[in-house]
Amino acid sequence: MKQDLSRIANTGLISKITNENDAASLIQDGMVVASSGFTKSGDSKAVLLALSQRAEFDPLKITLITGASLGQQTDARLATLGAISLRLPFQADAVMRTLINEGQLMYIDENLGETAMHLKTGVFGDIDIAVIEASSIKEDGSIVPTTSVGNSAIFAALAKQIIVEINLSVPADIEGIHDIFLTGKYPDKAVIPITSAGQRVGRSSIPCNPEKIAGIVFTDKKDSPADILAPDKTTEKIASCILEFLGNEVRAGRLTKALLPLQAGIGKVANAVLQGFAASDFEHLTIYSEVLQDSTFDLFDAGKVDFASGSSITVSESCYQHIFNNWEKYKDKILLRPQDVTNAAEVISRLGVIAINTALECDLYGNVNSSHIAGTHIMNGIGGSADFAQNSYLSIFVTESTCKGNTISRIVPMVSHVDHSEHDVDILVTEQGLADLRGLAPRQKAKAILQNCVHPAYRDMLEEYFMEACKRGGQTPHVIEKAFDWYKDLRLTGSMKRQHSIQESSLDKL
Amino acid sequence: MKQDLSRIANTGLISKITNENDAASLIQDGMVVASSGFTKSGDSKAVLLALSQRAEFDPLKITLITGASLGQQTDARLATLGAISLRLPFQADAVMRTLINEGQLMYIDENLGETAMHLKTGVFGDIDIAVIEASSIKEDGSIVPTTSVGNSAIFAALAKQIIVEINLSVPADIEGIHDIFLTGKYPDKAVIPITSAGQRVGRSSIPCNPEKIAGIVFTDKKDSPADILAPDKTTEKIASCILEFLGNEVRAGRLTKALLPLQAGIGKVANAVLQGFAASDFEHLTIYSEVLQDSTFDLFDAGKVDFASGSSITVSESCYQHIFNNWEKYKDKILLRPQDVTNAAEVISRLGVIAINTALECDLYGNVNSSHIAGTHIMNGIGGSADFAQNSYLSIFVTESTCKGNTISRIVPMVSHVDHSEHDVDILVTEQGLADLRGLAPRQKAKAILQNCVHPAYRDMLEEYFMEACKRGGQTPHVIEKAFDWYKDLRLTGSMKRQHSIQESSLDKL
Repeated sequence: MKQDLSRIANTGLISKITNENDAASLIQDGMVVASSGFTKSGDSKAVLLALSQRAEFDPLKITLITGASLGQQTDARLATLGAISLRLPFQADAVMRTLINEGQLMYIDENLGETAMHLKTGVFGDIDIAVIEASSIKEDGSIVPTTSVGNSAIFAALAKQIIVEINLSVPADIEGIHDIFLTGKYPDKAVIPITSAGQRVGRSSIPCNPEKIAGIVFTDKKDSPADILAPDKTTEKIASCILEFLGNEVRAGRLTKALLPLQAGIGKVANAVLQGFAASDFEHLTIYSEVLQDSTFDLFDAGKVDFASGSSITVSESCYQHIFNNWEKYKDKILLRPQDVTNAAEVISRLGVIAINTALECDLYGNVNSSHIAGTHIMNGIGGSADFAQNSYLSIFVTESTCKGNTISRIVPMVSHVDHSEHDVDILVTEQGLADLRGLAPRQKAKAILQNCVHPAYRDMLEEYFMEACKRGGQTPHVIEKAFDWYKDLRLTGSMKRQHSIQESSLDKL
Repeated sequence: MKQDLSRIANTGLISKITNENDAASLIQDGMVVASSGFTKSGDSKAVLLALSQRAEFDPLKITLITGASLGQQTDARLATLGAISLRLPFQADAVMRTLINEGQLMYIDENLGETAMHLKTGVFGDIDIAVIEASSIKEDGSIVPTTSVGNSAIFAALAKQIIVEINLSVPADIEGIHDIFLTGKYPDKAVIPITSAGQRVGRSSIPCNPEKIAGIVFTDKKDSPADILAPDKTTEKIASCILEFLGNEVRAGRLTKALLPLQAGIGKVANAVLQGFAASDFEHLTIYSEVLQDSTFDLFDAGKVDFASGSSITVSESCYQHIFNNWEKYKDKILLRPQDVTNAAEVISRLGVIAINTALECDLYGNVNSSHIAGTHIMNGIGGSADFAQNSYLSIFVTESTCKGNTISRIVPMVSHVDHSEHDVDILVTEQGLADLRGLAPRQKAKAILQNCVHPAYRDMLEEYFMEACKRGGQTPHVIEKAFDWYKDLRLTGSMKRQHSIQESSLDKL
């Protein structure tokens, strides 16, 4: 592998250069291993791959802690070999998901803003070794990250040993876009003094005791590209509902045309919503999010966004090329921060973030499931959605109203798993329309959702349930023994749809 | 009613002195009315009573917004007369609860830390009139509150008109214990710079434009006293489990003997836990909570607590006398703050609060219901429990394992309503024992709860459910169509208990 010694300013560390196999040999059975990487960006691409190759003939089991999901099929490789006993705080791999749902691999699905605190307070024990992708190492041993920060700063602070992967495919002049702020330990946790998305509060590299660096490996593998799905009619309808709603908020004097900092989860709906801003009247927008996606850079190019703060740049291959070919244009408009800063309740609530996240399903009263299919099988995880939904100024959840050829309604009587309670859901949007749940009691929320969000194929069924529930009474009416009948029907017949005799809407009679 | 003009330093306001009936006449049908008051302390005692008397022959309907619950049976009186169309953000009255659950009174059960933000952003429209209990009015028109701050500062800032109730039963030298910090509006919301429970960051009175003061009423009615239930065997067992756990955390080096600031919800279990600290080895404790209860002052007297911050003093009659008879002893050790400061995610997460709250029920995977009986009928509301559980360093939930002569298990397969998801529950304690859920995946949490918290009368049933669920698979195994069978049985037979054939624990086989 090609080396570039100019990437290691601390000359005392030159002797630590090694190859990925030797570096991986430092990882032993039973260890707690941390790796950089957040939504496939800035992850270990050499050492964890070498580890998976070794694991084929030298079985081992490790705890693997990251920022969020990894690229390079690392999770799939290691999981298939049985090399992971415990994984946290997030994953998004199909193979690993199957093993998790079979109970063969323990998975702690965490709020992404909380892992650093849990690590500092010793919940998961000591970190034996951390693998951190870097663009360079500075004279003081500090590490300049690449396309993500994630939990790398806390890994560097706590790990007993550190392997640095210097990735030559990332230009060295990425230095400067990182803002590394360490919050400190209880009882002396610091104020995070951010009062605007673009405010720098930390240093440009991750502090690291050079004596802990046990190996330096070079690589030139690129980040796995993001899968970008083009907007379709459904996502465009959802996007237009949100833009219309925000326009009305501006006209009502509750927001200005600059809105408040935007956060958008990953996925085609969120991407479509952000793209919708390009042709809107909004201006001088800012982004305070986790992941800077293609749409972020489209909005820079459209002159709509002034600044974007996140914990990673996760983009398509063409966007990646475009960014680094035009680096001067973007580098002063971006900050990448540790995920316990991007996702800090403190900062999100202070800035008044407008959070747009995807629901797997939502119920009559606005409770949202964003992680578990039919209440049991995890899809990916809660990610940062609760960090943002709980603390935002406006918490918007988006979903298509049905899926799988209308056999599944994403609006159900009672969600089978609650990630976000009704207290943390302000706005619900489907391609049917938008329900503004602010200032409503639960029974009023149910009417707003029935009238605006439910697919026509399920409206009568849901209305019938709601009416029967209201006869039973309660602040949050339910027919508890029928609350999950739709899942039972789905299991038995392959569809939530049933025949019903209600001919016309009787909602107004309630 | 006796008057004391020395309580009104702004002499221009003397002319505003009136009686409660005339003041109440300012409140008209359809108005949005705000009232001071937090867990029965510092509430309106004259004007809202006069309003309820008028409502007997002059029907009207208002929106009533407070800090939290009111004393003086105000909620019951107004609700019985049909005088409230919408109530928020919290209530704890039996009569009002019935009307809410019948759907006759709309109730927005809110996180107590969030109401101020919702008011500032206009979710509930304008506040027409605010009634604020005061100990005095200062020369600049600012209001010195009494035994609570609650949402009074934001009410004073936003209301079109203000009625001040000066309560002569509260000594004027209560002045000095309030710390009024206004967080500002988006996009210029301020850092709340609190880094310790005892830090003063604001002023000692509530800013108020004297021109908005439309009436001043004198009263000498005392706060409704708190109902204090003596500890019993169950609560003492729960308390001893928590104290033992915290002792172990100190021995493991994760906490010091001063622990971290304590928050405790209202109720006999939380009260028993706090009382348990009196005879413990812990020292120099601090409290950063919502409500300062009898136990807080017991711990001052025992020399265990150095400082206590809250939004109200809600104590028994004898404790109330004791406090004000010994005011010099306590006044420098207490701060009462606005509830959007006591309950701010920012401060709770920065201080690393140890939060102890009561669960109505908890499920196999650590999800907690703290508000809805059988998933539908609200008890009181979520209160501040989510503000603290979501942002604390340690989120502890306590509950007895069964109730009503063992016919109801408080540990169930799936909770019927989720206020706190598994992500926000670190420790679960019943009189059976304590389950430390930190660092566990859902299936591991289930085993810890089964082994430590469930009542023996329900252990086999819950284990049988868990085993059947595990056969179905999933990150969070459930038998979705049976998840609520216990509630169905309770409804049909008056008990959750059933006959089962499992003779011995087969948990270890999983």
